[in-house]
Amino acid sequence: MSEFFPEHAGPFAQAASALEGKRIAVLGHVRPDGDCIGSQVAVTRILRQVFHVDAAAINQHPVPRACASFVGDTPFFEAGDVDLNGFDYAVSVDCADRSRFGSVVDQAFPEIALNVDHHISNTRYAAHNLVEAGSSATGELLAGIFLDNGYAIDPVTAQALYVGIATDTGQFRFASTTFKTFEICCHLLENGADAAQAAYELYEKESRAKLALLQRFLASFRYICDNRVCIGLIRQEDWDATAALKEDTEGLVDYARAIEGVDIGVLVEEKDGMVKGSFRSNDASFRVNELAKKFNGGGHACAAGFNPGMSVADLMPKLEAALESHLTKLAEIG
Amino acid sequence: MSEFFPEHAGPFAQAASALEGKRIAVLGHVRPDGDCIGSQVAVTRILRQVFHVDAAAINQHPVPRACASFVGDTPFFEAGDVDLNGFDYAVSVDCADRSRFGSVVDQAFPEIALNVDHHISNTRYAAHNLVEAGSSATGELLAGIFLDNGYAIDPVTAQALYVGIATDTGQFRFASTTFKTFEICCHLLENGADAAQAAYELYEKESRAKLALLQRFLASFRYICDNRVCIGLIRQEDWDATAALKEDTEGLVDYARAIEGVDIGVLVEEKDGMVKGSFRSNDASFRVNELAKKFNGGGHACAAGFNPGMSVADLMPKLEAALESHLTKLAEIG
Repeated sequence: MSEFFPEHAGPFAQAASALEGKRIAVLGHVRPDGDCIGSQVAVTRILRQVFHVDAAAINQHPVPRACASFVGDTPFFEAGDVDLNGFDYAVSVDCADRSRFGSVVDQAFPEIALNVDHHISNTRYAAHNLVEAGSSATGELLAGIFLDNGYAIDPVTAQALYVGIATDTGQFRFASTTFKTFEICCHLLENGADAAQAAYELYEKESRAKLALLQRFLASFRYICDNRVCIGLIRQEDWDATAALKEDTEGLVDYARAIEGVDIGVLVEEKDGMVKGSFRSNDASFRVNELAKKFNGGGHACAAGFNPGMSVADLMPKLEAALESHLTKLAEIG
Repeated sequence: MSEFFPEHAGPFAQAASALEGKRIAVLGHVRPDGDCIGSQVAVTRILRQVFHVDAAAINQHPVPRACASFVGDTPFFEAGDVDLNGFDYAVSVDCADRSRFGSVVDQAFPEIALNVDHHISNTRYAAHNLVEAGSSATGELLAGIFLDNGYAIDPVTAQALYVGIATDTGQFRFASTTFKTFEICCHLLENGADAAQAAYELYEKESRAKLALLQRFLASFRYICDNRVCIGLIRQEDWDATAALKEDTEGLVDYARAIEGVDIGVLVEEKDGMVKGSFRSNDASFRVNELAKKFNGGGHACAAGFNPGMSVADLMPKLEAALESHLTKLAEIG
């Protein structure tokens, strides 16, 4: 078998060995996603099984509904439900900086023993920092480390790591998906991960409210800038009519982006008197972070968000004008 | 490297060797999908490159828009655009029986030299039949054979095979996805397949009309049988208003099925005076093929279609009554 992450496998084993006999909190980030939950589950289990560490996963926010079944019998707590002073050390996964912990967790754990992450922006805030920006998911990095080190990976751990990879690669659709991603998934399935069961839990249990919200979002589509921009809108009345949850907007903006001829998809949300928005493009050349800056926001060249601090009625003409001039400027630069 | 399909690799090499110097048509099926096109492209290229065979892919129907870019420089023709008498022999891929060729192709090629397929129902209609029902896609079977035999796989061939696997596994979501699927994809990416480029072509170029049709379909959802059945409807007026294509209904019924608590999703389509429908369930125990039989249809336990021969207004009460009694009967059987 090839070695996946030789520079991280040894340091992980050393750092984990030093935790033996301690009570360890395995921290994730606020609004946790599949890679966060999966990585917390996997590290907690490996610390317990391989290193005889009394580890538990701790998150400021609850495990999302779609990920609940992947926790299995892993000790996993919300920060409010457990004595945060009862831990000797903390390990973090999938957190680029300390602010990602959320304020309650951040204050409770001033020192982090080990930080495992795949974000290029990671600030290396821990005593030991294992950061691999080339890996598609923290789950991929952890799986590679565990395989390199020959740890026994039980089916719950294998499935948790698989879920991290499947979700963070958009089900193997993002450019971060490499041959290594597939090779690692092959090993995870050999160790008991189940791709179809993961997909069922992740994608096949949509709520009626989410579909109703999607329907209203699609009905709102407007195409501007010679059809190169698609804007969709969620109004307060849509929330009221559908009883959808805040998390139900996840993925909506991709419907506006993934249309033939559309370069930038836009989602504008109005909720409880606040307005916020998202830009998505297929290509970094569209630099949507620069657009977001004009509306009190920021982000990446392909994905950015904004909080314009104005009503939808005030925002819309400004947004359209900004998109028009942004695309014109990009065309001039060539 | 492990051997993927040792019982098929040798016979493929023998059958292909016998075609050397001949003009060969590589046949697929009507209404071709990603696995059909990808497998045709891959076999045509390998026959040309490894066996110096003058091979061309032939299909009765055109290559779907989303797959066009994966053909590359492979000779690929619609049956109507080429002299079908100009070939010495034919090879078929992804075709469970001869009816899948379409009538024009079926009549032009009475004898098939080699049949490569992954459908359990394959009727073994050729001189050499390489059928592997355990593989997730014909593309997976072909890729395994090519790797086992050590053929050089160029990037266009690798991408075509990857597209076959990605589409036939529902982007690695179906139960047919195994560790072998991931191992083979790892090798395809090492040979130049690009998962993100494939996903972009396959999923990120939706037409505005298709999204408009989806919006109308979602707006039509009705939940019956204690919310265990979701019925969505496409009416003639929806076709007229959206200018959507017939192929744009693909995948719609899955929106009705993949809802928490829903056991059976139903799509009813009205077009040009005809009414047809589809049933989908998450679990074979719902035997939707039995339901379809009552409406002049049939299919599999999880996926079936019907042509009821009556108007939507006449169909709907009968459909609801049949669903109610079907679910009641299943509950009684336990």
